[in-house]
This record gives sequence, structure tokens and C-alpha cells, in this order.
Amino acid sequence: MLRYLTGGESHGPSLTAILDGIPAGLAVTAAYIDKQLTRRQGGYGRGGRMKIERDRVAVASGVRGGYTTGSPVTLVVKNLDWADWSRVMDPEPGAAVDERVVTRPRPGHADLAGACKYGHRDMRNVLERSSARETAARVAAGTVARRLLEELGITIAGVVTRIGTVQADVEFADAAALIKAVDGSPVYCPDPAGAGKMMEEIDRAGVEGDSLGGVFTVVVYGLPPGLGSYAQRDRTLDGRLAGALMSIQAIKGVEIGAGFAAASSRGSALHDEIFYSAAKGFYRQTNNAGGIEGGMSNGAPLLLRAAMKPIPTLYKPLRSVDMADKEPYAASVERSDVCAVPAACVVGEAVTAWELAGAVMEKFGGDTMRELSDRYQEYFQYLKGL
Amino acid sequence: MLRYLTGGESHGPSLTAILDGIPAGLAVTAAYIDKQLTRRQGGYGRGGRMKIERDRVAVASGVRGGYTTGSPVTLVVKNLDWADWSRVMDPEPGAAVDERVVTRPRPGHADLAGACKYGHRDMRNVLERSSARETAARVAAGTVARRLLEELGITIAGVVTRIGTVQADVEFADAAALIKAVDGSPVYCPDPAGAGKMMEEIDRAGVEGDSLGGVFTVVVYGLPPGLGSYAQRDRTLDGRLAGALMSIQAIKGVEIGAGFAAASSRGSALHDEIFYSAAKGFYRQTNNAGGIEGGMSNGAPLLLRAAMKPIPTLYKPLRSVDMADKEPYAASVERSDVCAVPAACVVGEAVTAWELAGAVMEKFGGDTMRELSDRYQEYFQYLKGL
Amino acid sequence: MLRYLTGGESHGPSLTAILDGIPAGLAVTAAYIDKQLTRRQGGYGRGGRMKIERDRVAVASGVRGGYTTGSPVTLVVKNLDWADWSRVMDPEPGAAVDERVVTRPRPGHADLAGACKYGHRDMRNVLERSSARETAARVAAGTVARRLLEELGITIAGVVTRIGTVQADVEFADAAALIKAVDGSPVYCPDPAGAGKMMEEIDRAGVEGDSLGGVFTVVVYGLPPGLGSYAQRDRTLDGRLAGALMSIQAIKGVEIGAGFAAASSRGSALHDEIFYSAAKGFYRQTNNAGGIEGGMSNGAPLLLRAAMKPIPTLYKPLRSVDMADKEPYAASVERSDVCAVPAACVVGEAVTAWELAGAVMEKFGGDTMRELSDRYQEYFQYLKGL
Amino acid sequence: MLRYLTGGESHGPSLTAILDGIPAGLAVTAAYIDKQLTRRQGGYGRGGRMKIERDRVAVASGVRGGYTTGSPVTLVVKNLDWADWSRVMDPEPGAAVDERVVTRPRPGHADLAGACKYGHRDMRNVLERSSARETAARVAAGTVARRLLEELGITIAGVVTRIGTVQADVEFADAAALIKAVDGSPVYCPDPAGAGKMMEEIDRAGVEGDSLGGVFTVVVYGLPPGLGSYAQRDRTLDGRLAGALMSIQAIKGVEIGAGFAAASSRGSALHDEIFYSAAKGFYRQTNNAGGIEGGMSNGAPLLLRAAMKPIPTLYKPLRSVDMADKEPYAASVERSDVCAVPAACVVGEAVTAWELAGAVMEKFGGDTMRELSDRYQEYFQYLKGL
Repeated sequence: MLRYLTGGESHGPSLTAILDGIPAGLAVTAAYIDKQLTRRQGGYGRGGRMKIERDRVAVASGVRGGYTTGSPVTLVVKNLDWADWSRVMDPEPGAAVDERVVTRPRPGHADLAGACKYGHRDMRNVLERSSARETAARVAAGTVARRLLEELGITIAGVVTRIGTVQADVEFADAAALIKAVDGSPVYCPDPAGAGKMMEEIDRAGVEGDSLGGVFTVVVYGLPPGLGSYAQRDRTLDGRLAGALMSIQAIKGVEIGAGFAAASSRGSALHDEIFYSAAKGFYRQTNNAGGIEGGMSNGAPLLLRAAMKPIPTLYKPLRSVDMADKEPYAASVERSDVCAVPAACVVGEAVTAWELAGAVMEKFGGDTMRELSDRYQEYFQYLKGL
Repeated sequence: MLRYLTGGESHGPSLTAILDGIPAGLAVTAAYIDKQLTRRQGGYGRGGRMKIERDRVAVASGVRGGYTTGSPVTLVVKNLDWADWSRVMDPEPGAAVDERVVTRPRPGHADLAGACKYGHRDMRNVLERSSARETAARVAAGTVARRLLEELGITIAGVVTRIGTVQADVEFADAAALIKAVDGSPVYCPDPAGAGKMMEEIDRAGVEGDSLGGVFTVVVYGLPPGLGSYAQRDRTLDGRLAGALMSIQAIKGVEIGAGFAAASSRGSALHDEIFYSAAKGFYRQTNNAGGIEGGMSNGAPLLLRAAMKPIPTLYKPLRSVDMADKEPYAASVERSDVCAVPAACVVGEAVTAWELAGAVMEKFGGDTMRELSDRYQEYFQYLKGL
Repeated sequence: MLRYLTGGESHGPSLTAILDGIPAGLAVTAAYIDKQLTRRQGGYGRGGRMKIERDRVAVASGVRGGYTTGSPVTLVVKNLDWADWSRVMDPEPGAAVDERVVTRPRPGHADLAGACKYGHRDMRNVLERSSARETAARVAAGTVARRLLEELGITIAGVVTRIGTVQADVEFADAAALIKAVDGSPVYCPDPAGAGKMMEEIDRAGVEGDSLGGVFTVVVYGLPPGLGSYAQRDRTLDGRLAGALMSIQAIKGVEIGAGFAAASSRGSALHDEIFYSAAKGFYRQTNNAGGIEGGMSNGAPLLLRAAMKPIPTLYKPLRSVDMADKEPYAASVERSDVCAVPAACVVGEAVTAWELAGAVMEKFGGDTMRELSDRYQEYFQYLKGL
Repeated sequence: MLRYLTGGESHGPSLTAILDGIPAGLAVTAAYIDKQLTRRQGGYGRGGRMKIERDRVAVASGVRGGYTTGSPVTLVVKNLDWADWSRVMDPEPGAAVDERVVTRPRPGHADLAGACKYGHRDMRNVLERSSARETAARVAAGTVARRLLEELGITIAGVVTRIGTVQADVEFADAAALIKAVDGSPVYCPDPAGAGKMMEEIDRAGVEGDSLGGVFTVVVYGLPPGLGSYAQRDRTLDGRLAGALMSIQAIKGVEIGAGFAAASSRGSALHDEIFYSAAKGFYRQTNNAGGIEGGMSNGAPLLLRAAMKPIPTLYKPLRSVDMADKEPYAASVERSDVCAVPAACVVGEAVTAWELAGAVMEKFGGDTMRELSDRYQEYFQYLKGL
């Protein structure tokens, strides 16, 4: 059973994740994880902070000499500005808690509901954790899962397919080409024309002091049929993936395959017919199911889409009310990101990787990568023999 | 901690659910649950079977004299055609397993992936469980949760807002009016004009041997702010609700509030500004967040939407391949539903109720309804004092 | 992941268990489960009720033609006296809840604490569930796990090693001989002399209107090393087994291997030295560890002991207080068991089987028995090669 | 829902715990946790290492200005000799993994089974995590739970009641006196005569190159009735506590109340009769149940006992076999602890605290200490009114 917990605040000393259940013998390095942390911090449309910070993971347990040992893996991402915040965020009684106090809840954030829930007058105690900064830990954790999947020949690609009103035109057939094109794009969009328009829209919104959302697509290649299960509702692969994606900050919609478009289609036009050839075994010519039927992977690439709302911290003032004196005020900031869809896409890849690795471990078990890998191959052999 | 498991096949003796963690002292009757079971079986566009069967729940534990006792609640929904199937579905070695064998996987179903996963040559062993018949148990379980929420003043309404190409025009402001209008509609749609067009589209698709999907919306009124949490990803309310909705058979998309439309909006236009009056406390004039900010309820009505694909069992043949001899064939049926969106909507209400009751129990605890209710009122008092 | 929930009251219609995660293709019949249910109802020292009742399981899902399908397994054990109790225990508002009311908490039972916790004035609402009758469902569930282990060559034996002041002299080396001797003993004790004295002690206590406890030992043969884990505290095999055994009604102590005697031993005398031969691989000549080192099975037989307190329902009056009027009274019964240690032993075997099957599934995964069995054999091959 | 994970190796950089579900507003400082860490490192009978090291916790998240915030609490205990080990334990590929290699499994340790399970040739990869060093993280985590309980008036005391053949004579009636006496004893034993003999036995064993085990007792004062539940087996308080205690390294037996002695008692002599007075409410004059009946706390002090085996690392050689060449050898060490029962006692207190806090949070819920505390008081009020 794969599981993890994370802890850490935006301006605390660090973000930490403890991963339990990773098999022994998985090759993983800090550099491999850092690559994804860097991608999470990148993307056209970010404000100043991202350029200062450079997240680096430190592995504090569970990995030795480049390989996991089967013991829990502890990952630590330091906050590089901790020195500036240590007085205010100090865990000890002497902390300067009367500085940098936040009494004005920002629309679109956890501030107001979090203050109600946890009884805080200073919403700093909310926003420090509810901030998307936390996703650095999720990306670190998910990247270990991604490494595990990679070892089995499973490839995850994340693509920004929409920013604001600009919809890109993306072809998902060729994984390698797709990933290369994404890597070359400042907005993680493999369609150069679309990417250009996206950046223009970001620039325009930035000038106007506004922010933008968008849509990213996570594609997974190389999955066998039979991950997840219809047997119990909380074991369905689509349920788990949708839950993981929707749990990312600012995500308001999730689709699998045809998604909402499926609702408008006729059954005769939508379902992916089944074919067979000796070379390919059972296969499909379409993928409206997005790789999931009956709560299980069906052997086709997974196609997941998530809609991100625009960043709620913006220059243009939003009306709100001070919790202390109930006076209205105009919430605005002096520096912010315009668009964080590329970053969210990286988080989406990471949480997808984690859920898939969990489904893999449930089906294949194994305390070592050798066991896992052998069993995985045996399953493919068995499938060929069907 | 609220949890439940279900068991049962489409043509087995019964569907069963065991619910653990329901507080003592909750008034609940079989008739209350049956009302939702009946709604699940209704809705314009269903084929013959639904008309024969009339699901009735039997409470086999955990309720006495009309009140829960704090012990696990066992709910049993008998399959009324068990007598016809008992030979074929018999758990004992003598079962007639060579009858009603299914070797032809239906596109859009769990059949093929399930056969691979569980090693079945007879896909009856898959479809008996993967069928949406299982949702009768989920509706029964979720209805106990709905009863609990009702006791706290929380109301859940489900509305069919689209069938095929017909989009209804629905106003969510007035819960009572909405529910009444839904109850009066054969397609669970409160917009009479829309409902009429939906039924025409269903009739047309029926004549053409085709099937339709659609969209339903679940609205929840009366929630306090602070259910769910941003503290850990798997405690976010949006993550849990999305996971629960996507785990329903045939659901391919989930939205909260503005959903995918949020991706195209400007931040300045989307976020729900915060206001305050002595009478109302903090409030919003818009609800693009759909009642969830920062992974928590924010006090506004919850707005959840789910997209259902068309039923994959249809008269019009879909191409597939026989698993036994690898020969292609045309999958078609002689009788089927044309559209099950109204039924799915009832399931959506039920799973929403369950997740919300879970979030309520985490925040308020309590082994008795009296405790729960007192604490709930105290929280509202506290909120008023903020 | 293996899990199950049970529901059901002593005098309700039935006890139900839903098991999730059992692989497909496991051969299991009602008769196989019934054998354990019968053993649970047997044993020298039981009062009248056990002789009337004859528990029989009905499999309501997840098994077809004698084999599991991979879907949840629902097991139902009917209460044969339901007809006598249906008026009083009726779930509906009309139940005769003013009959058979219990306001007098019995020492040694859940009655008083349960009434406080769940807010009941009628402690029938507590005792109906807290009763050891519930273990019929646990035995049913655990027996499916036992079947799975059996398929892998793992054998579980339960032995009553003490009743009251009588300690039996038992030799655990030969599993088959042990089980045969247990099966032939009315007190499930393979030592004929000891068994004779136990029955005398039971007779004596019965005459005196008293009750007896005792100790049972569960032995498990054929486990490989490496089940459970030291990696995280809640994955330790000893922790899980101790938790499962202590959760059985009336159990007050659990030991593994030397148990409390280990506390008085010198390290040089206690630890099981390690030897190697080409034929046996690594082996031990002693088993003070009881088959568990470092939270994992170590390849030696598992030796678990549990201490059961005497049945608290007895003829000899125990002093208590009526909850309604706070008047003292003498709690006594007219008919009761004198000793239920043999029954508890069967429950102990069942919960041990369940925990072990869970540890097996975590290490080996698998949706089918074929997969599980293949992987299990491969692990033994690998161990031989070390 | 309270939960935590830990990571970290004996000679890695640090041990880490992430705690999820601690309510906001709990006063907690590093010094409060350090006190327990120091106690864990103390106790007569420890070898050299304990004297060098001084564990100190660093709080890396979830606490600000001396109060929890409701966000996950991250606790880090650095290993002070990390500099000496960083080359050998380095997570990166360049680690000196060919140094300090362990190929000789020590009897009584996880070494051999762990090597089998996780496929390690170098058992350092096992012992680094399976070592009781890990309990520093458990103590840190459990101490936060202890703080929470303390706030509610619940007191936990741990007492060493046996070392080797020396049984102390301990009176548990007066919590404050007990704790004071324990604090003043080098072996955490409040009986001065017994403590003296324990130290003599430790000295003797030390001279002889041997090691000792023992028994500790954890007592909990101030619990209300009704924590835990009989409703489902895995919610029983005794089951959870036994599981937690048995999961501690080297624990081989657990008793609650009379424990194994209950097995030899007559029912009429064992069960705690129930009395009532207006001043005290319901009460008992005996506590053979150890504070738990029917899987719930019953309002009497909790009495838990755990048996620890002697430390398996000792000067006197134990026979084992080298895994690499299968040659026998005599396992011995040059420096080791003679007895770690006092340390284990502190771990026992910590894991008890954690389980109890979990049971409290399930019954009372609450996101803030204010809510929790109010509800807790209300429950006591309600109990008084019974």
C-alpha cells in the first residue's frame, strides 16, 4: 500500500513529504526529482518569486547510494527565504505573531473558510498551508512514483492545452515528440501557434493587472489493462484520479477522455469499438474513453484534463471585508503571477503518477523492484496469451 | 470515521451495504430509503427491466424502532429476479456456469479489461458486478447520510441539466421550488421546456436504436463554511466529491462551480467577492466557486456537475471481438435503456451526501445525533460571533 | 488491500460480512466456512443456546460455481431465533422497544460504557452488538482468508492450552498430529490428560455457578520470512496480530513466542540462533521469537497466545446498579456458558488468518489466485537461491 | 482522523514525523517534546551512545508562536553523528556502500527476514530502519498527543515494573506520587527496593556480557467512559492499544488489567462490580478490567503492561551464519546496552498517548482545541446527569 503525508508552510523552514511503501531497489536521485521541481517553478506568466527561488530536494531517508531501500522515503524541500521569515513563523512562543498579520480574506482563497474552521484571527495561519506552495512536496512525492512507472515502461506527459481563451491544437499520438515539444515551450504547449497566442494573452492580462486560468491534459502511455477496479467504488481508477486532480489548488473541473463532450454524443458515435490482430492483441481505433472503462485502465493511453481557475491574487482589486473590523476594502497585490497553468500541469502529472503507482502496487505487490518488474512482465506475457 | 462497503451482483440474490460510523439516534426508515431507490429506478428513457423491478431495502442491523443504535447499519436490496438466475449464479460448485456465458466484450463496458484483470473467460463474472445495478447499494447507503444531513438542515437536490444536445435552463436559488419541480418532471429537470425537448430527444434516439448521455447537477444548501480541509490533499472536499462522482459508472467529467468555464475567465471576473452585513455575516453575491474554496465548503451552496456518457449497450451494433475465438462480431442488444441520466443523478446525490456526512463527522465527531446536533448548532453560534 | 466490515446483532435477522479484495479463482464453499462456524459453536462448557443454534453461512455475492470472482464476497449468517425477536428488534418505528428492556449494566460487559457512549437508556441497544455473537461474522470472514492461505500451503491450528487453573502440556512440532488431536477433543486441547482436567474444572465451576477463562494458542505453519514490515509501525506483523487478537471479546492478554517469559530471560538464553544447511537453508533450532523478528515473519512457525477472561455472565450474583433508578441489585442469570475458551480459540484462528492473508496480499498482490500462487512460488525459489 | 508517518534511519541525517489532524490551538513547544526524548534516551543500563547523543526536536511545520495551527505538524530529530556516516549513508549514487557492509544477520533482529524481504545483500539497509532508533520519532509524535490529552485532564504515567527476574511492588492509586517517584528513579521504577535490585541485576548481567528484558506498565488517569467502540473490530480500544504496544521493537507480550492472570481466575472473583454514589456517579472498587470493557474505556484508569525481550545485541556470542558465504560465526558486539526497558517504557507511553488521542478525536471531533475542550466538558456534564 502506497501512501504519503506532507507537511510544511509557504514561509516555514521547509516542505516535507514521507512516502511509505516504495519498493526497494528503485533508482532515484535528487537531480531526477529536482528536474520536476524546476518545471513546477517555471512556465511563462510567473511573477518574481519563482525566479529567485530554486527548489532543491534533499532526501533524508529511504534512499542509499542512488537506490531506495524499502524504508520510508523522506523528501525535504527547503524554503530559501526562511531566514527572512523565521521571526514571524517561529514555532516557539516568542514568535513575532503580531507582524505580517492577515485579517483580510482574499476572494478565491482558503482564507475566510479556513479562519472559520480553525479559529484563526490571523489568516496567515491559513494561507501559509493552503497556498499552492505545498504542491512542491506533492511534486517531489509524485516524481518518485513517476520514476517507478518509468522503470515499467510507463510514460507520463503533461500538456497545457488552453490558457484563457486560447485553445491549442495538440496531437497525442507520439509520446516522445509530444514531450520534446512541451519541453521546448515556455507555456508547456506543443502547438507553437497556440503557445504564441497564449503568451500574448498572458502579456495582455498582465498589463491589465488581471490573471488567467486554463486547461492542462495529462497523458499516460504504456499502461496495461486492469489497473483500478470496479469491485468497490473507492478502488475505481477514474474516481481516484479525478479526486487527486481536483484536490490540486484552483482546479475546478476534471475530464477523462471525451469528458463533457461525451454527454452530448450519441452512444453509437462515442464508444471505442474493439478490434483484434495477432500482432497487437485487442486494440481500439478511437479513445473517447480516455483509457478507462469500468473503473479500470483499458490498455489505451490515459487522457485526463483539468480546468484551472485564474489565480485569485491579482492587481485589479477584488472587494472583500476585513475580519477584524468588518470594514470593506479592495483586495489587491503589488506583485503576483498572471498565470500558473504550466505549474499546475506539472502538479497534475505528479498526482497522476502517484495514483497510478498505487494502482500498480495493488495489482502487483512486491517489496523490490525486481519482483515488481518480473510480475509486470509476466502479466504482459499472460495478456499476449489471451 | 464514516465508511462503507458494498457487495452484490446484478443477478445475485441481493445487494448489500454495511455502513460503519453512523451515530446513534438518527431517525431512519426503510420507506425513506425506498423513496430514493424508486427515484433511482425511474426517469424517462429506461427500458423494460426497471418497470418490473421495484427495489425495496431491508434493514438487517443497526436500526431499531426507527432509530440508529450506533452499531453498523446493514442494508439489503433483494434482486427480484434471483429465482430466474439462481442456477446460473449459484455460489456452490454445482452452478450452471456453462449457461449464459459471455465471451463477447462490449465496448464502453468493463468487460474486456475486467476479464484481463481477473482472469475470467466468462465475462458474466465481470459484468455482474461492474453493472450500474451496484448503485442501488450506494443509493441506499448515501440516503442514510442524506437523512443525517437533513437533520442538520442540509438539503441536497439533484437536477438533470442536459440530455444529449438539450441544455436546460435552471435556476438554483430556491431549494424548495427546485426540488418540487424536479419531482414533477419525468426527466428530473425543473425547466419544463427543456424537459420536453429532452424527452423528444430520448424518443428520437430510441427510435434510431441509439443511446444518450447528459449532465446532472447536484446542489447542496445549508452547509457551513469549513467542511473538508486544505491541510492534507486527501482531505480536500473538492477532491473527495470529485472522486466520488467520477467513481459512478459512465461518468466522464466533473465540475465544481464555474468548472471548465473558469479556465476561460479572467480572475477579476470570476472570483466571488466577499461582503458582510450584520444580518447575514460574511456573504457572496456570486458563486463561481460552487461553494468550495481552498478545499473547504465556504458557506455558499455547493454546485457540482457530472457528465455521463451515453449508455454503451444499444441496438445499433458496435464492433467488437469474441474473446474465445477472436472473431469480430457486431455487439447489439434487443432491449436496453436509451438514457439513464436521471438515475445517475440520484446516485450523484447519494454519493455527495455520503462524502458530506463524512466531512461533517470529521469536524463534529459524535456518537449520538444529540451530540452532533448540539455541536453543529454551537459552530453556527460561533460563526455568528465572528 | 484486504478489508472487511461486519454488521449484525445477536437477535437481529442476521450477521453479515462484506469482504473486499479477495482474489478471483479461490475455491471456497459454504460447507468449508460452516465447518468453522460449527467449531465456534462447539467446545465443552457451553450452555443451552449453542445446542439449539446451528450457524450456516449463505454466500450472497462474490462467489460463483465454487470460486471467488474478484468481486466483494458477502457472507450472511442468519440468527435462527429471529422470529422470536422480530417484534422487539424490528428496525421500523413500530418495534416493541418497551419490551425486554435492559437497564442493569452487567460487570465485565460493554453495557455501562456503551450506554454512556451511545446515549442509550435501554442497554439492549449495546449488548446486541457488543456480544460475542458478532464473532460468527469474523469467523466466516477469516475462514475465507484461511482458505486462501491453505492454497499456498499455510496451515493454521488453534489449541486450548489452559482453562482456569489447568495448564495443558502441548507439543507443536507436528501440525497434522496436532490438528487431529484438537479435532478429537471436546475442549480443543490435544493433551488428553490436560483436557480431562479441564472438563472436570468446567464441571466444578458449573456446579458452583461460576465461569472460567483460559488461554489459547494459535500456531501457523508454512509461512515464508518477510511478511509484515518494520518500515512503518502499523505494518508490523506482530502489531497487527496482537491488535486483532486483543479485539476479540474477553481477551485481556496476547503473547508472541516466549511472551512474558522473555522478560525474565537473559539475552544469551533467549534469542534463536541462526543456522544454515544446503537442504534447509537458514533455520533455527529454537523458536522463542514465535516466528516474528523485526515486525516480520522469520520463517519459523508463528506462535500466538491469548488470555481470555472468564465469561462475565454467571449464576453467582455480581453487584451492579440499575441505571434508571440507581438502585443496587445483584446481577445474575439463569442460564449461561461456563467457559467459552474453545470458541474464542476458533475466533483467534480466524482473525489470525485474516491478518496473514492481508500481509500476503501486500507482499504478493494479485487479482487472481493463479497470479498469487505463481508469485508465491517464485519467492520461495528466490529464497532458496540466497 | 489522526494519523502520522515517520521516516528516517539510525545513521541517516534525521528522523522525521508528519502528524496530520492535530487541532489548532494546542500549546506545544520543542522543550516539552525534548523532555520525553531525553527520558527515552535515559534509564540505567544504557551503553555509551546514549550518553553522547542528546536528541532535540525541531518543529518544521504546523506550530507557530507556541500553538498548533491545524496544519500538519512536522517534527525532525537530527542524528548527531550524521557527519560520521554521511559518506556511507549518502542517498546519492556515489555513496560508500562497500563500507560498513553487514552480511551477518544477528539473531533476534530484523536482519535476516528483512534481507529476504527487501532483497538486500547488505543488511545495513535493513538494520538502519528496523533499529529502535526509529522510536525517537514515535516518541516525538506521541508527545504531541500527550500534550493534547493533558489539556483535557488526562495523565499518562509509565512505570518499569520488572527487569529480568526482579519484580517491583508498585501502587498505582496516586498519579502524582507515582510520576514523581518514577522521575526520581534511574530505572523508572517507583519502588526503591525493587529499583535497587533491578540495578544490581543490570550490573551483574553487564559484567557477564549479557542483556536483560523486563516489563513496563502504562497507566492512564482521567479518561471518560466510551472511548473506542465495540461496533467494529478495528475500533476497539483494547485492540488498538495492544497493536500499538506490540509494534514497539522487542515487545513480545501485552496485557490489559489482570491480563493472563484473568485466564486463571473465576468469573465471580474477577469482574469489577458496579457501584453508584451521587458524588462519584458509577464507579468500581476494583480494576481487573484495566479500564476497558467491551472495547471501550470504562472510566477507570487504563492499565497496560508490555513485556520486552532482552536486547539481542550482546557481548556473549550468539551463533549465526554469514549470508554471503554461509559460514557460521559467533555474533557479538563490543559495546551495547544491557537493558532498554526504561526507554521502551517511554515509547509505550507515547504510543498509548497517540492511540488515545485518536479515540478522543473520533468521539469529539474538532478543528480547534477550544471546540474539543468544550465538547469534552459537555460530555462530562452529560455523564453526570445520567
